[in-house]
Amino acid sequence: MKQSLLFVPTLKDAPKDAEVKSHKLMARSGLIKQTASGIYTYLPLGNRVMKNIERIIREEHDKRGCSELLMPAIQPRDLWEESGRWGEYGPELMRLKDRKDRDFCLGPTHEEVITHVVRDHINSYKKLPLALYQIQTKYRDELRPRFGLMRGREFVMKDLYTFHDHEDDLEKWYKLISETYRIIFKRCGLETKIVSSDTGQIGGSQADEFMVMSEVGEDTISYCDTCEYAANKEFSGLAAGDACPECVKGTIKEAKGIEVGNIFKLGTKYSTSMNAYFTDKDGQSKPLIMGCYGLGVSRTMMAAVEQHSDDNSIVWPEEIAPFDVHILPLKVDDEETIAASDAIYKELSGSKEVLIDDRPERPGIKFKDADLIGIPYRIIIGKDIKDGKVEFINRYTGEKKLVETTEISRLF
Amino acid sequence: MKQSLLFVPTLKDAPKDAEVKSHKLMARSGLIKQTASGIYTYLPLGNRVMKNIERIIREEHDKRGCSELLMPAIQPRDLWEESGRWGEYGPELMRLKDRKDRDFCLGPTHEEVITHVVRDHINSYKKLPLALYQIQTKYRDELRPRFGLMRGREFVMKDLYTFHDHEDDLEKWYKLISETYRIIFKRCGLETKIVSSDTGQIGGSQADEFMVMSEVGEDTISYCDTCEYAANKEFSGLAAGDACPECVKGTIKEAKGIEVGNIFKLGTKYSTSMNAYFTDKDGQSKPLIMGCYGLGVSRTMMAAVEQHSDDNSIVWPEEIAPFDVHILPLKVDDEETIAASDAIYKELSGSKEVLIDDRPERPGIKFKDADLIGIPYRIIIGKDIKDGKVEFINRYTGEKKLVETTEISRLF
Repeated sequence: MKQSLLFVPTLKDAPKDAEVKSHKLMARSGLIKQTASGIYTYLPLGNRVMKNIERIIREEHDKRGCSELLMPAIQPRDLWEESGRWGEYGPELMRLKDRKDRDFCLGPTHEEVITHVVRDHINSYKKLPLALYQIQTKYRDELRPRFGLMRGREFVMKDLYTFHDHEDDLEKWYKLISETYRIIFKRCGLETKIVSSDTGQIGGSQADEFMVMSEVGEDTISYCDTCEYAANKEFSGLAAGDACPECVKGTIKEAKGIEVGNIFKLGTKYSTSMNAYFTDKDGQSKPLIMGCYGLGVSRTMMAAVEQHSDDNSIVWPEEIAPFDVHILPLKVDDEETIAASDAIYKELSGSKEVLIDDRPERPGIKFKDADLIGIPYRIIIGKDIKDGKVEFINRYTGEKKLVETTEISRLF
Repeated sequence: MKQSLLFVPTLKDAPKDAEVKSHKLMARSGLIKQTASGIYTYLPLGNRVMKNIERIIREEHDKRGCSELLMPAIQPRDLWEESGRWGEYGPELMRLKDRKDRDFCLGPTHEEVITHVVRDHINSYKKLPLALYQIQTKYRDELRPRFGLMRGREFVMKDLYTFHDHEDDLEKWYKLISETYRIIFKRCGLETKIVSSDTGQIGGSQADEFMVMSEVGEDTISYCDTCEYAANKEFSGLAAGDACPECVKGTIKEAKGIEVGNIFKLGTKYSTSMNAYFTDKDGQSKPLIMGCYGLGVSRTMMAAVEQHSDDNSIVWPEEIAPFDVHILPLKVDDEETIAASDAIYKELSGSKEVLIDDRPERPGIKFKDADLIGIPYRIIIGKDIKDGKVEFINRYTGEKKLVETTEISRLF
């Protein structure tokens, strides 16, 4: 792909309202652009990262027997009256009326709709378990939108809903999806800690959050430096330096946490109130037992930037990088340079996603933009091209070397 | 994929409000389910078809140098005041207020947002042309939602916006995208006719619609049986049997048309009102010249069902079919049947998308559901499996034959 066609409007300065590093970088590197407070456009580079995260999510869910569907963003009030949440939910719920004065909301979550989708059809234990997910745009009218994609009002989430005939099966799936989340975040370059949470407006009997340890974030997490123990500081009461209750050798550390996923055992809260019953093995009518599992797609992108960057550059984790290789021909008016960059582009394009900076810009600007854009492997076509050599940079290790153009394909 | 996990709730009867064949079939075959009037959930089978259409759209746009981005559905009133459309648009525009009483709308189209996205960055003719598209959920509060996905209130569209420094370049791109649309629809199994249209609320100097000829649809199209001539009957005044004005041999026929795409030469309507200027070669400041191009993803799915079905069955066009092969083991309690279906499933899964009907249902139900689901190639594992044979059906040609299980992979 030619950079001149991609539309990557890098900025010298971050917008004034950007408080945290990832928000500043995402705006400066042309990943996102604000359309209104808490509402963003994902520019081509950001969109490519999002699509990579979505691909990983689909792969990991599909291979475990989950099926993808797509529910609407607009939800009718009557479904929310059935669950009782129309009255319970506060001003975070964005409400609107249609031309006939009927009430709707823009879904922050889809328990009501999914229960409506399945309740007429899952009439027997023989059709269970069932696991349905979507990757979809969600809405929450935050009082103070901030931190870019971290507390936005329109955001992209994956939400999965599972249905079971008994608690043991819910428990089995809860563990399966918890492990699936760990794998997904790892593939996205994120180490996560699991923290118990209260079940809030979603309801249910157990809930856990997936937190990325960070310098920013909305919660303070106490975690052990040795074992897997992690808890919200507010609830655990443990502070940095304390001994860890579950672990002999461990000491408590503190960090802010960015919540990238949450999972809930809903139990029968929605199936009872919304009349979603099935006939069990013994012929008895019972409410469906449910679980729900959210994963923030746009937040995952932001957390990856927060973890894999310094003040002026990003290095994207391999699987979610917008491109694999960035070719920088320094003199676009030099025939030898252009011939070499075209040849390398063609050679690598079969197996790699390649971006070529074909803009007639000065080398200093190209380097600065390339640091911001954050593609892991870089090939610089400079003055050594007259000897048939280019510079290769592995941005994970920092390794730089001059290589023969004939050797390029062996580097990957 | 196992059918028991996919969630395909087929129905014996269509919903009462379904008037046209495709709407009835889409509900009966478990492709979609209504959540509210004009608002649908795409069930797993429908979602797979949508994703296939989206893949084709991306391939054909990307290879022509278009870049994908994702704009928000919620749009602030101030951008619509700039273009003048906040006051012009009628009750089809869904409007809402946030918690601070600020006005927003749910976008039926994105001219305002895309102009806002590019206007600070495209300051020179050197950065033109530029072609940006998204695949996104759109809103239109129809007075009378009907015909399922044909006149819905929440729907999925691809919208592309192009930016140019002179009219000739817009003309070039207009032709290029017109041809791209023809190719996309063809890959989706649809023959389209191009009909001039008025520019309506979008504005601009020229507009054309892509119409699928059908028994249903919202316009009546007069078209020539010999050449490419087609026009909206209301404007052409030509009726069935008339001679065709542009063609010696042709005779006019009439059909209803389903609009699946529309393209507009916007000119400088939005760039002038929203102050999106660039500096031309000669140093002069000029407004960007724009084109916009819509393609209905959910409508394309519906038009494909309308064209490739009879009252009780669908046969999906190859490239958008939810699966390639449907395996029907008739006796799921017979070991030989299960062993054979598992082996065939494994053999084909490497190169094909395969669905296996593992449900413990009677053959009659399996056949009826398979007809509704519409997968092009079918393998029935019945009583002949004792001789190592299965029935293979090509649903495009209607060809049926008994084949050795060892021969299966050679059929594709």
